[in-house]
Amino acid sequence: MENSKQTIKPRKDETDMQEIVVLRWGHRLQRDARLTTHVALTARALGASGFLLSDITDEKIKEAVEKVTRSWGGKFFFEMGTSWRGAVSDWKATGGIVVHLTAYGENIQASNVLERIRNLRKDVLLVVGSQKVPREFFSKNVSDFNVSIGNQPHSECAALAVFLDRFFEGKELVKGFGNAKIRIIPQERGKKTVVNR
Amino acid sequence: MENSKQTIKPRKDETDMQEIVVLRWGHRLQRDARLTTHVALTARALGASGFLLSDITDEKIKEAVEKVTRSWGGKFFFEMGTSWRGAVSDWKATGGIVVHLTAYGENIQASNVLERIRNLRKDVLLVVGSQKVPREFFSKNVSDFNVSIGNQPHSECAALAVFLDRFFEGKELVKGFGNAKIRIIPQERGKKTVVNR
Repeated sequence: MENSKQTIKPRKDETDMQEIVVLRWGHRLQRDARLTTHVALTARALGASGFLLSDITDEKIKEAVEKVTRSWGGKFFFEMGTSWRGAVSDWKATGGIVVHLTAYGENIQASNVLERIRNLRKDVLLVVGSQKVPREFFSKNVSDFNVSIGNQPHSECAALAVFLDRFFEGKELVKGFGNAKIRIIPQERGKKTVVNR
Repeated sequence: MENSKQTIKPRKDETDMQEIVVLRWGHRLQRDARLTTHVALTARALGASGFLLSDITDEKIKEAVEKVTRSWGGKFFFEMGTSWRGAVSDWKATGGIVVHLTAYGENIQASNVLERIRNLRKDVLLVVGSQKVPREFFSKNVSDFNVSIGNQPHSECAALAVFLDRFFEGKELVKGFGNAKIRIIPQERGKKTVVNR
Protein backbone atom coordinates (compact mmCIF):
# COMPACT_ATOMS: atom_id res chain seq x y z
CA MET A 1 0.00 0.00 0.00
CA GLU A 2 2.94 2.38 0.58
CA ASN A 3 3.43 2.33 -3.15
CA SER A 4 -0.17 2.63 -4.15
CA LYS A 5 -0.10 6.37 -4.28
CA GLN A 6 3.16 6.57 -6.19
CA THR A 7 3.28 3.92 -8.88
CA ILE A 8 0.84 2.40 -11.30
CA LYS A 9 0.27 -1.26 -10.47
CA PRO A 10 1.27 -3.34 -13.47
CA ARG A 11 -1.02 -6.11 -14.64
CA LYS A 12 0.22 -9.27 -12.94
CA ASP A 13 1.71 -12.03 -15.05
CA GLU A 14 0.81 -15.69 -14.49
CA THR A 15 3.33 -16.17 -11.73
CA ASP A 16 2.50 -13.09 -9.69
CA MET A 17 0.00 -13.35 -6.90
CA GLN A 18 -2.77 -10.78 -7.02
CA GLU A 19 -2.83 -8.87 -3.77
CA ILE A 20 -5.90 -8.17 -1.69
CA VAL A 21 -6.37 -5.31 0.74
CA VAL A 22 -9.55 -5.22 2.83
CA LEU A 23 -11.42 -1.95 3.34
CA ARG A 24 -13.83 -2.03 6.27
CA TRP A 25 -16.55 0.58 5.96
CA GLY A 26 -19.11 1.70 8.53
CA HIS A 27 -17.34 0.65 11.69
CA ARG A 28 -19.11 1.88 14.81
CA LEU A 29 -17.05 2.35 17.94
CA GLN A 30 -17.89 -0.18 20.66
CA ARG A 31 -20.81 -1.78 18.84
CA ASP A 32 -18.56 -3.18 16.09
CA ALA A 33 -15.33 -3.43 18.05
CA ARG A 34 -15.09 -7.19 18.24
CA LEU A 35 -16.51 -7.88 14.81
CA THR A 36 -14.14 -5.45 13.14
CA THR A 37 -11.23 -7.04 15.00
CA HIS A 38 -12.35 -10.44 13.76
CA VAL A 39 -12.67 -9.10 10.21
CA ALA A 40 -9.13 -7.70 10.37
CA LEU A 41 -7.65 -10.88 11.84
CA THR A 42 -9.45 -12.94 9.21
CA ALA A 43 -8.01 -10.71 6.51
CA ARG A 44 -4.51 -11.26 7.90
CA ALA A 45 -4.83 -15.01 8.52
CA LEU A 46 -6.41 -15.74 5.15
CA GLY A 47 -3.93 -14.00 2.92
CA ALA A 48 -4.80 -10.31 2.59
CA SER A 49 -1.88 -7.87 2.63
CA GLY A 50 -3.47 -5.24 4.78
CA PHE A 51 -6.53 -3.62 6.25
CA LEU A 52 -8.00 -0.14 6.00
CA LEU A 53 -10.48 0.97 8.63
CA SER A 54 -12.07 3.77 6.66
CA ASP A 55 -13.46 7.10 7.88
CA ILE A 56 -12.81 6.49 11.56
CA THR A 57 -10.01 5.64 13.93
CA ASP A 58 -10.09 3.04 16.67
CA GLU A 59 -6.80 2.70 18.52
CA LYS A 60 -7.87 -0.41 20.41
CA ILE A 61 -8.47 -2.37 17.25
CA LYS A 62 -5.24 -1.18 15.68
CA GLU A 63 -3.34 -2.23 18.79
CA ALA A 64 -5.07 -5.64 18.94
CA VAL A 65 -4.33 -6.42 15.30
CA GLU A 66 -0.75 -5.16 15.39
CA LYS A 67 -0.10 -7.16 18.53
CA VAL A 68 -1.20 -10.32 16.71
CA THR A 69 1.06 -9.47 13.77
CA ARG A 70 4.04 -8.84 16.06
CA SER A 71 3.56 -12.19 17.79
CA TRP A 72 2.40 -14.35 14.92
CA GLY A 73 4.56 -12.86 12.17
CA GLY A 74 4.15 -11.97 8.56
CA LYS A 75 3.63 -8.62 6.92
CA PHE A 76 0.23 -7.04 7.38
CA PHE A 77 -0.45 -3.34 7.44
CA PHE A 78 -3.23 -1.67 9.37
CA GLU A 79 -4.35 1.81 8.36
CA MET A 80 -7.26 3.83 9.67
CA GLY A 81 -8.98 7.16 9.28
CA THR A 82 -8.61 7.33 5.48
CA SER A 83 -11.82 8.32 3.71
CA TRP A 84 -13.31 5.44 1.74
CA ARG A 85 -13.72 7.73 -1.22
CA GLY A 86 -10.06 8.67 -1.23
CA ALA A 87 -8.95 5.09 -0.74
CA VAL A 88 -11.12 3.84 -3.61
CA SER A 89 -10.02 6.54 -6.04
CA ASP A 90 -6.34 6.13 -5.14
CA TRP A 91 -6.64 2.39 -5.59
CA LYS A 92 -8.27 2.72 -8.99
CA ALA A 93 -5.85 5.44 -10.08
CA THR A 94 -2.98 3.04 -9.56
CA GLY A 95 -4.54 0.25 -11.58
CA GLY A 96 -6.32 -1.78 -8.92
CA ILE A 97 -9.89 -3.01 -8.96
CA VAL A 98 -12.57 -2.76 -6.29
CA VAL A 99 -14.69 -5.74 -5.24
CA HIS A 100 -17.65 -5.12 -2.95
CA LEU A 101 -18.87 -8.03 -0.85
CA THR A 102 -22.65 -7.86 -0.52
CA ALA A 103 -25.52 -10.34 -0.23
CA TYR A 104 -27.05 -8.67 -3.31
CA GLY A 105 -24.18 -9.23 -5.71
CA GLU A 106 -23.33 -11.98 -8.17
CA ASN A 107 -23.28 -15.31 -6.36
CA ILE A 108 -19.70 -16.59 -6.15
CA GLN A 109 -20.92 -20.15 -6.60
CA ALA A 110 -23.62 -19.67 -9.25
CA SER A 111 -21.71 -17.27 -11.50
CA ASN A 112 -18.26 -16.93 -13.01
CA VAL A 113 -17.56 -13.70 -11.13
CA LEU A 114 -14.50 -15.03 -9.32
CA GLU A 115 -12.97 -16.20 -12.58
CA ARG A 116 -13.55 -12.77 -14.14
CA ILE A 117 -11.88 -11.08 -11.16
CA ARG A 118 -8.93 -13.44 -11.27
CA ASN A 119 -8.51 -13.11 -15.02
CA LEU A 120 -7.97 -9.37 -14.72
CA ARG A 121 -4.79 -10.12 -12.76
CA LYS A 122 -5.06 -6.90 -10.84
CA ASP A 123 -4.76 -6.14 -7.16
CA VAL A 124 -8.08 -6.09 -5.34
CA LEU A 125 -9.46 -3.65 -2.81
CA LEU A 126 -12.12 -5.73 -1.08
CA VAL A 127 -14.85 -3.58 0.45
CA VAL A 128 -16.62 -5.07 3.45
CA GLY A 129 -19.50 -3.12 4.97
CA SER A 130 -20.85 -3.17 8.47
CA GLN A 131 -24.05 -1.16 8.71
CA LYS A 132 -26.12 -0.62 5.57
CA VAL A 133 -23.77 0.72 2.90
CA PRO A 134 -24.38 3.79 0.70
CA ARG A 135 -26.10 2.86 -2.54
CA GLU A 136 -23.15 4.39 -4.37
CA PHE A 137 -21.05 1.35 -3.40
CA PHE A 138 -22.94 -0.64 -6.03
CA SER A 139 -22.18 1.81 -8.84
CA LYS A 140 -19.36 1.70 -11.36
CA ASN A 141 -17.80 4.70 -9.68
CA VAL A 142 -16.99 2.49 -6.73
CA SER A 143 -17.26 -1.23 -7.35
CA ASP A 144 -15.93 -3.10 -10.35
CA PHE A 145 -17.67 -6.21 -9.02
CA ASN A 146 -20.41 -6.87 -6.47
CA VAL A 147 -19.98 -10.37 -5.11
CA SER A 148 -22.23 -12.37 -2.81
CA ILE A 149 -21.26 -15.39 -0.73
CA GLY A 150 -24.70 -16.90 -1.13
CA ASN A 151 -27.67 -14.57 -1.19
CA GLN A 152 -28.73 -14.97 2.42
CA PRO A 153 -28.03 -12.54 5.25
CA HIS A 154 -25.12 -13.71 7.39
CA SER A 155 -21.85 -12.07 8.32
CA GLU A 156 -19.22 -9.91 6.66
CA CYS A 157 -16.61 -11.90 8.54
CA ALA A 158 -17.88 -15.17 7.05
CA ALA A 159 -18.22 -13.66 3.60
CA LEU A 160 -14.67 -12.33 3.70
CA ALA A 161 -13.33 -15.72 4.80
CA VAL A 162 -15.01 -17.64 1.99
CA PHE A 163 -13.98 -15.07 -0.59
CA LEU A 164 -10.32 -15.18 0.46
CA ASP A 165 -10.27 -18.97 0.70
CA ARG A 166 -11.65 -19.31 -2.80
CA PHE A 167 -9.61 -16.49 -4.28
CA PHE A 168 -6.33 -17.91 -3.00
CA GLU A 169 -7.53 -21.49 -3.57
CA GLY A 170 -6.65 -22.60 -0.06
CA LYS A 171 -2.96 -21.73 -0.43
CA GLU A 172 -3.40 -18.97 2.14
CA LEU A 173 -3.97 -21.56 4.87
CA VAL A 174 -0.53 -23.11 4.54
CA LYS A 175 1.65 -20.11 3.83
CA GLY A 176 4.39 -19.23 6.29
CA PHE A 177 4.37 -16.07 8.40
CA GLY A 178 7.94 -14.77 8.68
CA ASN A 179 9.52 -13.64 11.94
CA ALA A 180 6.86 -15.23 14.09
CA LYS A 181 7.46 -15.28 17.83
CA ILE A 182 4.84 -17.95 18.23
CA ARG A 183 3.82 -20.71 15.88
CA ILE A 184 1.30 -23.55 16.17
CA ILE A 185 2.30 -27.08 15.29
CA PRO A 186 -0.99 -28.54 14.11
CA GLN A 187 -1.90 -31.91 15.54
CA GLU A 188 -4.80 -34.27 16.06
CA ARG A 189 -5.19 -33.50 19.75
CA GLY A 190 -4.02 -30.90 22.23
CA LYS A 191 -2.22 -27.60 21.81
CA LYS A 192 1.36 -27.42 20.63
CA THR A 193 3.23 -24.20 20.01
CA VAL A 194 6.81 -23.18 19.33
CA VAL A 195 7.79 -19.93 20.99
CA ASN A 196 10.79 -17.80 19.93
CA ARG A 197 11.27 -14.79 22.15
CA MET B 1 -32.35 -32.59 16.24
CA GLU B 2 -35.79 -33.56 17.50
CA ASN B 3 -34.96 -37.10 16.54
CA SER B 4 -31.43 -37.19 17.83
CA LYS B 5 -32.43 -38.30 21.26
CA GLN B 6 -34.76 -41.03 20.05
CA THR B 7 -33.23 -42.85 17.13
CA ILE B 8 -29.78 -44.02 16.18
CA LYS B 9 -28.55 -42.14 13.14
CA PRO B 10 -27.83 -44.62 10.39
CA ARG B 11 -24.58 -44.32 8.45
CA LYS B 12 -25.40 -42.22 5.40
CA ASP B 13 -25.25 -43.79 1.98
CA GLU B 14 -23.66 -42.05 -1.00
CA THR B 15 -26.75 -40.05 -1.86
CA ASP B 16 -27.53 -38.78 1.62
CA MET B 17 -26.17 -35.45 2.70
CA GLN B 18 -24.36 -35.48 6.02
CA GLU B 19 -25.97 -32.99 8.35
CA ILE B 20 -24.14 -30.42 10.41
CA VAL B 21 -25.35 -28.83 13.62
CA VAL B 22 -23.25 -26.05 15.16
CA LEU B 23 -22.65 -25.95 18.91
CA ARG B 24 -21.48 -22.57 20.18
CA TRP B 25 -19.66 -22.82 23.48
CA GLY B 26 -18.57 -20.06 25.85
CA HIS B 27 -20.95 -17.34 24.78
CA ARG B 28 -20.79 -14.31 27.07
CA LEU B 29 -23.86 -12.11 27.31
CA GLN B 30 -23.35 -8.70 25.74
CA ARG B 31 -19.67 -9.10 24.97
CA ASP B 32 -20.34 -11.89 22.45
CA ALA B 33 -23.86 -10.91 21.40
CA ARG B 34 -23.11 -9.76 17.88
CA LEU B 35 -20.44 -12.36 17.16
CA THR B 36 -22.65 -15.21 18.28
CA THR B 37 -25.47 -13.85 16.13
CA HIS B 38 -23.09 -13.77 13.17
CA VAL B 39 -21.95 -17.31 13.92
CA ALA B 40 -25.56 -18.53 14.00
CA LEU B 41 -26.52 -16.71 10.80
CA THR B 42 -23.42 -18.07 9.09
CA ALA B 43 -24.40 -21.57 10.19
CA ARG B 44 -27.86 -21.10 8.69
CA ALA B 45 -26.76 -19.43 5.45
CA LEU B 46 -23.96 -21.89 4.77
CA GLY B 47 -25.89 -25.11 5.14
CA ALA B 48 -26.03 -26.18 8.78
CA SER B 49 -29.33 -27.63 10.01
CA GLY B 50 -29.39 -25.90 13.36
CA PHE B 51 -27.59 -24.14 16.15
CA LEU B 52 -27.14 -24.93 19.83
CA LEU B 53 -26.15 -22.13 22.17
CA SER B 54 -24.80 -24.26 24.98
CA ASP B 55 -24.89 -23.66 28.73
CA ILE B 56 -26.59 -20.27 28.55
CA THR B 57 -29.71 -18.63 27.21
CA ASP B 58 -29.86 -15.37 25.29
CA GLU B 59 -33.36 -14.48 24.14
CA LYS B 60 -32.20 -11.61 21.97
CA ILE B 61 -30.01 -13.82 19.83
CA LYS B 62 -32.69 -16.47 19.55
CA GLU B 63 -35.18 -13.84 18.44
CA ALA B 64 -32.75 -12.30 15.92
CA VAL B 65 -31.93 -15.66 14.34
CA GLU B 66 -35.52 -16.90 14.26
CA LYS B 67 -36.64 -13.64 12.71
CA VAL B 68 -34.16 -14.16 9.89
CA THR B 69 -35.40 -17.71 9.39
CA ARG B 70 -39.04 -16.60 9.31
CA SER B 71 -38.29 -13.96 6.67
CA TRP B 72 -35.65 -15.69 4.60
CA GLY B 73 -37.04 -19.21 4.77
CA GLY B 74 -35.68 -22.71 5.12
CA LYS B 75 -35.54 -24.95 8.14
CA PHE B 76 -33.10 -24.04 10.84
CA PHE B 77 -33.53 -24.79 14.50
CA PHE B 78 -32.17 -22.71 17.34
CA GLU B 79 -31.78 -24.28 20.77
CA MET B 80 -30.19 -22.82 23.86
CA GLY B 81 -29.42 -23.62 27.45
CA THR B 82 -28.46 -27.26 26.85
CA SER B 83 -25.25 -28.29 28.58
CA TRP B 84 -22.42 -28.91 26.12
CA ARG B 85 -21.65 -32.17 27.87
CA GLY B 86 -25.20 -33.43 27.46
CA ALA B 87 -25.38 -32.32 23.85
CA VAL B 88 -22.09 -34.03 22.98
CA SER B 89 -22.98 -37.28 24.67
CA ASP B 90 -26.48 -37.36 23.16
CA TRP B 91 -25.01 -36.68 19.73
CA LYS B 92 -22.47 -39.47 20.06
CA ALA B 93 -25.00 -41.87 21.53
CA THR B 94 -27.09 -41.53 18.40
CA GLY B 95 -24.22 -42.20 16.03
CA GLY B 96 -22.99 -38.71 15.23
CA ILE B 97 -19.43 -37.42 15.35
CA VAL B 98 -18.04 -34.29 16.96
CA VAL B 99 -15.69 -31.93 15.13
CA HIS B 100 -13.99 -29.19 17.12
CA LEU B 101 -12.83 -26.12 15.21
CA THR B 102 -9.62 -24.81 16.74
CA ALA B 103 -6.47 -23.08 15.51
CA TYR B 104 -4.48 -25.95 17.07
CA GLY B 105 -6.06 -28.79 15.13
CA GLU B 106 -5.21 -30.54 11.90
CA ASN B 107 -4.95 -27.99 9.11
CA ILE B 108 -7.87 -28.43 6.72
CA GLN B 109 -5.63 -27.54 3.79
CA ALA B 110 -2.43 -29.37 4.72
CA SER B 111 -4.01 -32.63 5.89
CA ASN B 112 -6.68 -35.07 4.76
CA VAL B 113 -8.86 -34.41 7.79
CA LEU B 114 -11.87 -33.21 5.80
CA GLU B 115 -11.77 -36.33 3.65
CA ARG B 116 -11.65 -38.53 6.75
CA ILE B 117 -14.65 -36.71 8.22
CA ARG B 118 -16.61 -36.98 4.99
CA ASN B 119 -15.77 -40.64 4.53
CA LEU B 120 -17.39 -41.53 7.83
CA ARG B 121 -20.73 -40.40 6.36
CA LYS B 122 -22.04 -39.43 9.76
CA ASP B 123 -23.80 -36.32 10.96
CA VAL B 124 -21.48 -33.76 12.47
CA LEU B 125 -21.80 -31.69 15.64
CA LEU B 126 -19.44 -28.81 14.93
CA VAL B 127 -18.12 -27.23 18.12
CA VAL B 128 -17.15 -23.57 17.88
CA GLY B 129 -15.66 -21.92 20.93
CA SER B 130 -15.67 -18.31 21.97
CA GLN B 131 -13.44 -17.75 24.98
CA LYS B 132 -10.63 -20.22 25.66
CA VAL B 133 -12.16 -23.69 25.64
CA PRO B 134 -11.69 -26.39 28.31
CA ARG B 135 -8.76 -28.66 27.49
CA GLU B 136 -11.19 -31.58 27.57
CA PHE B 137 -12.57 -30.42 24.20
CA PHE B 138 -9.42 -31.78 22.57
CA SER B 139 -9.80 -35.25 24.09
CA LYS B 140 -11.41 -38.32 22.58
CA ASN B 141 -14.24 -38.01 25.08
CA VAL B 142 -15.37 -34.92 23.26
CA SER B 143 -13.88 -34.40 19.82
CA ASP B 144 -13.51 -37.02 17.13
CA PHE B 145 -11.55 -34.47 15.10
CA ASN B 146 -9.82 -31.19 15.87
CA VAL B 147 -9.71 -29.09 12.73
CA SER B 148 -7.95 -25.81 12.05
CA ILE B 149 -8.70 -23.35 9.29
CA GLY B 150 -5.07 -22.34 9.03
CA ASN B 151 -3.02 -22.21 12.21
CA GLN B 152 -3.22 -18.49 12.82
CA PRO B 153 -5.51 -16.72 15.28
CA HIS B 154 -8.52 -15.23 13.53
CA SER B 155 -12.25 -15.72 14.05
CA GLU B 156 -14.61 -18.56 14.86
CA CYS B 157 -17.07 -17.02 12.44
CA ALA B 158 -14.51 -17.13 9.61
CA ALA B 159 -13.42 -20.65 10.54
CA LEU B 160 -17.00 -21.88 10.54
CA ALA B 161 -17.65 -20.32 7.14
CA VAL B 162 -14.64 -21.92 5.48
CA PHE B 163 -15.36 -25.29 7.05
CA LEU B 164 -18.99 -25.30 5.85
CA ASP B 165 -18.07 -24.05 2.37
CA ARG B 166 -15.51 -26.82 1.96
CA PHE B 167 -17.60 -29.51 3.60
CA PHE B 168 -20.60 -28.85 1.36
CA GLU B 169 -18.32 -28.07 -1.62
CA GLY B 170 -20.05 -24.77 -2.35
CA LYS B 171 -23.45 -26.37 -2.88
CA GLU B 172 -24.73 -24.61 0.24
CA LEU B 173 -24.45 -21.25 -1.51
CA VAL B 174 -26.99 -22.07 -4.19
CA LYS B 175 -29.51 -24.16 -2.30
CA GLY B 176 -33.07 -22.87 -2.02
CA PHE B 177 -34.67 -21.78 1.23
CA GLY B 178 -38.32 -22.87 1.24
CA ASN B 179 -41.19 -20.59 2.30
CA ALA B 180 -39.11 -17.45 2.10
CA LYS B 181 -40.95 -14.15 2.47
CA ILE B 182 -37.99 -12.33 1.00
CA ARG B 183 -35.50 -13.48 -1.58
CA ILE B 184 -32.57 -11.73 -3.27
CA ILE B 185 -32.18 -11.85 -7.02
CA PRO B 186 -28.42 -11.65 -7.41
CA GLN B 187 -27.17 -9.16 -9.96
CA GLU B 188 -24.12 -7.23 -11.03
CA ARG B 189 -25.27 -3.93 -9.57
CA GLY B 190 -27.90 -2.68 -7.16
CA LYS B 191 -30.26 -4.47 -4.82
CA LYS B 192 -33.10 -6.59 -6.11
CA THR B 193 -35.45 -8.56 -3.89
CA VAL B 194 -38.69 -10.45 -4.33
CA VAL B 195 -41.06 -10.09 -1.39
CA ASN B 196 -43.95 -12.47 -0.63
CA ARG B 197 -45.98 -11.37 2.34
